[in-house]
Amino acid sequence: MEPDVLAEIGAIVGEKNYSNRVAELYAYGFDASIHHVTPDVVVQPRTPEQVAELVKLANKLKIPIVPRGAGTGLCGSAVPLEKGMIIDLTRMNRIKEIRVEDLYCVCEAGVVYDDLQKALAKHRFSFPPAPGSAEACTVGGMVATNASGMRAVKYGGTRDYVLGLKVVLPTGEIIEVGTRTLKNASGYQLERLFVGSEGTLGIITEVTLRIAPKPKKSAMILAGFNTLEKAGRCVSALIAKPLLPSAVELMDSTCIKAVNTVVDAGLPDVEAICMIEVDGDPKMVADELAEVVKVCESIGAIGLQQTEDSAQMAKWTAARKSVMSSLSRLYEDRCSVSLADDMAVPISRIPEAVVEFRKIAKKYDVIVGTYGHAADGNLHTKMLLDPESDTAWRNGEKAVGEIFDTCIRLGGTVTGEHGVGISKAPYFQKERATMLSTMGAIKRALDPNNIMNPGKLQAWEGSILTHLRYPCDEYCEKS
Amino acid sequence: MEPDVLAEIGAIVGEKNYSNRVAELYAYGFDASIHHVTPDVVVQPRTPEQVAELVKLANKLKIPIVPRGAGTGLCGSAVPLEKGMIIDLTRMNRIKEIRVEDLYCVCEAGVVYDDLQKALAKHRFSFPPAPGSAEACTVGGMVATNASGMRAVKYGGTRDYVLGLKVVLPTGEIIEVGTRTLKNASGYQLERLFVGSEGTLGIITEVTLRIAPKPKKSAMILAGFNTLEKAGRCVSALIAKPLLPSAVELMDSTCIKAVNTVVDAGLPDVEAICMIEVDGDPKMVADELAEVVKVCESIGAIGLQQTEDSAQMAKWTAARKSVMSSLSRLYEDRCSVSLADDMAVPISRIPEAVVEFRKIAKKYDVIVGTYGHAADGNLHTKMLLDPESDTAWRNGEKAVGEIFDTCIRLGGTVTGEHGVGISKAPYFQKERATMLSTMGAIKRALDPNNIMNPGKLQAWEGSILTHLRYPCDEYCEKS
Repeated sequence: MEPDVLAEIGAIVGEKNYSNRVAELYAYGFDASIHHVTPDVVVQPRTPEQVAELVKLANKLKIPIVPRGAGTGLCGSAVPLEKGMIIDLTRMNRIKEIRVEDLYCVCEAGVVYDDLQKALAKHRFSFPPAPGSAEACTVGGMVATNASGMRAVKYGGTRDYVLGLKVVLPTGEIIEVGTRTLKNASGYQLERLFVGSEGTLGIITEVTLRIAPKPKKSAMILAGFNTLEKAGRCVSALIAKPLLPSAVELMDSTCIKAVNTVVDAGLPDVEAICMIEVDGDPKMVADELAEVVKVCESIGAIGLQQTEDSAQMAKWTAARKSVMSSLSRLYEDRCSVSLADDMAVPISRIPEAVVEFRKIAKKYDVIVGTYGHAADGNLHTKMLLDPESDTAWRNGEKAVGEIFDTCIRLGGTVTGEHGVGISKAPYFQKERATMLSTMGAIKRALDPNNIMNPGKLQAWEGSILTHLRYPCDEYCEKS
Repeated sequence: MEPDVLAEIGAIVGEKNYSNRVAELYAYGFDASIHHVTPDVVVQPRTPEQVAELVKLANKLKIPIVPRGAGTGLCGSAVPLEKGMIIDLTRMNRIKEIRVEDLYCVCEAGVVYDDLQKALAKHRFSFPPAPGSAEACTVGGMVATNASGMRAVKYGGTRDYVLGLKVVLPTGEIIEVGTRTLKNASGYQLERLFVGSEGTLGIITEVTLRIAPKPKKSAMILAGFNTLEKAGRCVSALIAKPLLPSAVELMDSTCIKAVNTVVDAGLPDVEAICMIEVDGDPKMVADELAEVVKVCESIGAIGLQQTEDSAQMAKWTAARKSVMSSLSRLYEDRCSVSLADDMAVPISRIPEAVVEFRKIAKKYDVIVGTYGHAADGNLHTKMLLDPESDTAWRNGEKAVGEIFDTCIRLGGTVTGEHGVGISKAPYFQKERATMLSTMGAIKRALDPNNIMNPGKLQAWEGSILTHLRYPCDEYCEKS
């Protein structure tokens, strides 16, 4: 990047708040996906006004901008495809207001999810979505990708809690969308349009979220099954009952083996597990537990365990949360890759989906660990492969393609909660052909110079990026 | 309208499915607001494909189009400001799917809310938002205006339940946005953008809604107060406790007098009433009732009554629902007018708001009945005035202006659930100056010929319609 541009950036944010050192730029080229592109500069603004000035500068000089939270995204949404400027929002991390009497809070985009939860917990309130990367991910990133996590079946996802946003548009104009009231019927719901926009429409600098009283009590059931399909049937039987557990986490035998081997989780050695959480009023929780047990038994659950002990629940939850990292360490010659491991189907199609995924894995001789937030239809399929084998990558890609075709055929979506980013681009296009032109029209209207996270929408539209379809290329060339 | 255009319309929908008879056109010039403009033709398509053909024709000939549900809107959203074609969607009224095991249903836009609820109730499910015009309003209209009603504090509004939409764009292209899964992180949340768009971005022809199990039990409390301010304090004390009742309906003495006089509702003769509903698991409801009673008593409630009897609850609900029509019949020389009677403030500002509204009414010597869904901060202020008095109208307008200024000052919005339409245009502009240019950019990108409900966005932007600011003009000229 030209020295005079860097000087202008320094004048906006201060000399210490930007960097073009090679090591830092390289690190900011990653998120938690398999993609990597090194940016030209990383900037850490502290106010919406600084963000606005940076955007104006970039818009004038047509410098690509990628806003970034914690970089925990698994699809490459924060990878700067066309290089340019990373705007790291993690220093804008003030919780500005917690108004429990009005059921909302206001935070800057860089507030870490867990920090917000801790602050809300003091008031016995919470922001119900529960993403897997809770310790690190930022509220702004959650909005930009419509993150959700474990409790969406009962409590909804991020989009359902966004009351208002402060956004810096691609022109540098700062706008406020939405309200601080629980209701509004005032024009287009722009606060929801920006949800899932992955930095392509503007930079979210502040978020007003609806909050909810914390459930007074929760309890958990761990149910084993001797087939994966039965575990899937258990999930849909619970919903059809109708019961609305706060979470149902499914894990297949590969995932169980991984957490038992790697973190000594002590889960029963069965083909599949459903970890079911119920919450609410103490009196209700006991009844709901009993009903859940009945449903599990009717499907043939084995080794049923239940607990209201918070230490035991924390242990089970930790086991579930360690699936992703454990899978990576399960085999010496394979690592777990985020090829495209997030999808959702209508809940009743879960049994069919998990059986189909297993067939596809067998067909391509790949190992797939299937787990996820099954009660809201959201599954994850993590692929374990030898990163130095070209064949393994190609087979993995083919398996992913068929897995996503299956999801689309079952009435589902190729992205439940991780976003589209780079990894999902070709599949997204298959799923949502008719809406892409409208997305494109909106993008071009708001960002005529295409400075905001450029390349992403074009990838979704299918016009570029075919070279990125095989992320193995870089690995294979090196090996 | 030219005969050859009518012939083309007839060829699309059939000769019996459109009309340009004077009486019908006149009727379709109204919604439930005080505005009226006679359209040129009314068409009743039966399929999205017919809608698409009509839109293509209109786009080619630059004929204004206004989509219309039941016409129950109170702000003029469905009034065809620039005449043209009304597309009446009430014949597209099929409930296409109810999938309780997947927690969603799919209906055509013209399905009446109550019909959907009856169909869902057979499965012990419901679509939780509860609009006042339940017997007549359509699901498509609810989406187009982000309608909500009584239960939003606990269950959210329409926007929170929209999973997917089928939309005919201004070009005539049919697109599907959103999914049939509970979650999606797939690009811009266009399904939520169209919520609140009031027919300015396209025509919603089909809606996929999240549904929820019906609460097993509900109960109600009726609490009287000797000042309106105390009733307001009761509302915010309940939320701050924290308690999440399914509804808290507030009525001031004018409203109480109206329903007691006109429909003999038998409500206690006090300064204000809170009608509080709690629902959920039977075991929980009793406890929550007791907690609500305690809060009411701590604020000094008088004449507390509570019931779990469904007939009594229906009676109270009917009394509440008859407020609007009763106010109109309370005085012989005044009628109730929808000047601009819907707003929301942060819940804790309710006491201040109701006191302020009363002061403003006194200042302008107008009668204002205040009521509404106070637990979600949503109030209604119905004005009773002599429709033949120019002074009354001018004073009413001034009072409305100050009422809305108060809402904005308290951090609220000038439209809680009715939409913007014509009535709210100048106030909306005051409230949301910074977001209007983004709305305009999106509108122009999707509807370059400005055929969809033209005049509305321009009114919101403040560029036309000053002649409509005083709706009394027409009345006064006639009298």
